[in-house]
Amino acid sequence: MDITSINNEKIKYFQKLKLKKYRDLENLFLIEDEHLVNMAYEKGYLKEIITTDKSLKYDILTYYVTPQIMKLLSDQVTSAKVIGVSHKITKNNIEGNLIVLDNIQDPGNLGTIIRSAVAFNFKTLVMSNDTVDIYNSKVIRATEGMIFNLNIIRGDIEEILNNLDKDYVKITTDVNEGEDIKRIDFKKKKIALIIGNEGNGVRSNIASLCDKKVNIKMNELCESLNAGVCASILMYEVNHE
Amino acid sequence: MDITSINNEKIKYFQKLKLKKYRDLENLFLIEDEHLVNMAYEKGYLKEIITTDKSLKYDILTYYVTPQIMKLLSDQVTSAKVIGVSHKITKNNIEGNLIVLDNIQDPGNLGTIIRSAVAFNFKTLVMSNDTVDIYNSKVIRATEGMIFNLNIIRGDIEEILNNLDKDYVKITTDVNEGEDIKRIDFKKKKIALIIGNEGNGVRSNIASLCDKKVNIKMNELCESLNAGVCASILMYEVNHE
Repeated sequence: MDITSINNEKIKYFQKLKLKKYRDLENLFLIEDEHLVNMAYEKGYLKEIITTDKSLKYDILTYYVTPQIMKLLSDQVTSAKVIGVSHKITKNNIEGNLIVLDNIQDPGNLGTIIRSAVAFNFKTLVMSNDTVDIYNSKVIRATEGMIFNLNIIRGDIEEILNNLDKDYVKITTDVNEGEDIKRIDFKKKKIALIIGNEGNGVRSNIASLCDKKVNIKMNELCESLNAGVCASILMYEVNHE
Repeated sequence: MDITSINNEKIKYFQKLKLKKYRDLENLFLIEDEHLVNMAYEKGYLKEIITTDKSLKYDILTYYVTPQIMKLLSDQVTSAKVIGVSHKITKNNIEGNLIVLDNIQDPGNLGTIIRSAVAFNFKTLVMSNDTVDIYNSKVIRATEGMIFNLNIIRGDIEEILNNLDKDYVKITTDVNEGEDIKRIDFKKKKIALIIGNEGNGVRSNIASLCDKKVNIKMNELCESLNAGVCASILMYEVNHE
């Protein structure tokens, strides 16, 4: 279907999906660029496609639009050639190693953590209700499509941790008291790794639920690592033991 | 000194420092927020201070300005209360382990790599001429002040690698052919670790100068890690052996 007017109702509808409020209302989100759209398609999440490229043929409803419309819908400086309208991720069972996020606020950090979680065989991501929206376009872009390969749960993490199977070892970071992650043997253990907010760390009510505190040994000139890097190194170590 | 007009020549001058062209011309850059300004001060790089806070007393030239002026100069949604005008970093000797960046483009990635480099005892960062400007405000913020704790060199990295002391082992990443970083013993070796561009990796003329290719073992669903995470995990491993 061709659309050439920026005042078209469908275009206005797509534009609204740039806002969290409407993404939550419609259970849909936008995903930019061909390789990410293709991942959504392969996983069965893709609903509709918006593109300026007439040669693109998918077997789902496709809107062929003008570059001007694309500019309106795209969140990148150089507009994407393809934007997908994707259903939200529906996998939400707790399985395998968990990464638990307590109020991560930076979209790039959340996206990076999702990407690393898949790389290091974590099966489930649990995030607190106040964590940044995973359907934010910056998060989606930073996941490099890995968002479709993870169980993702948003909720009350205190409640979720309290109801976790007894065989999970709950680990969090503590710069002062933690044990060097390099010295810990994770073999045959199911791990729930809890990562705190960029500025304030893990809330004390969440930290108090943990079985073990760990840290990453570093030069004392540096107080802390970027939250995405910290989470990634810990997942890397859990995966490699 | 008090300044209340946004048309003041000094304010116009500070505003220009938001652009790379003028930072290069003046050899100065802006740094936001008190803890980063303090780091620049402690390291002797701070030239002048701009603040809305009359209670702030430094023993260097301070401009007390209006919130409106601060909004003009700050790059953050919520304006900083203090902005420092800092001299560029002048340490540029090659020493210790090196992290070498071949055309890193994302400011967040560069800042994160600088922060991790200090954490993992890398002494020098070398970046290609086409790498994003380290004095970009997003880079500075992501370094969390660690930019002042590193030797930083921008130049022709092919030439720099060719002229490196013979005892440096030059390492880069190769997803297909690389050896698992976890299995390598770095003890007593001087390392130059080369990290490539986010989309295209290390250029072949640079890769061909390397003595060893390494990779980070990961799930095959995930093609690659975020460049900042990848560099950080490799530096972490080099530091911990």
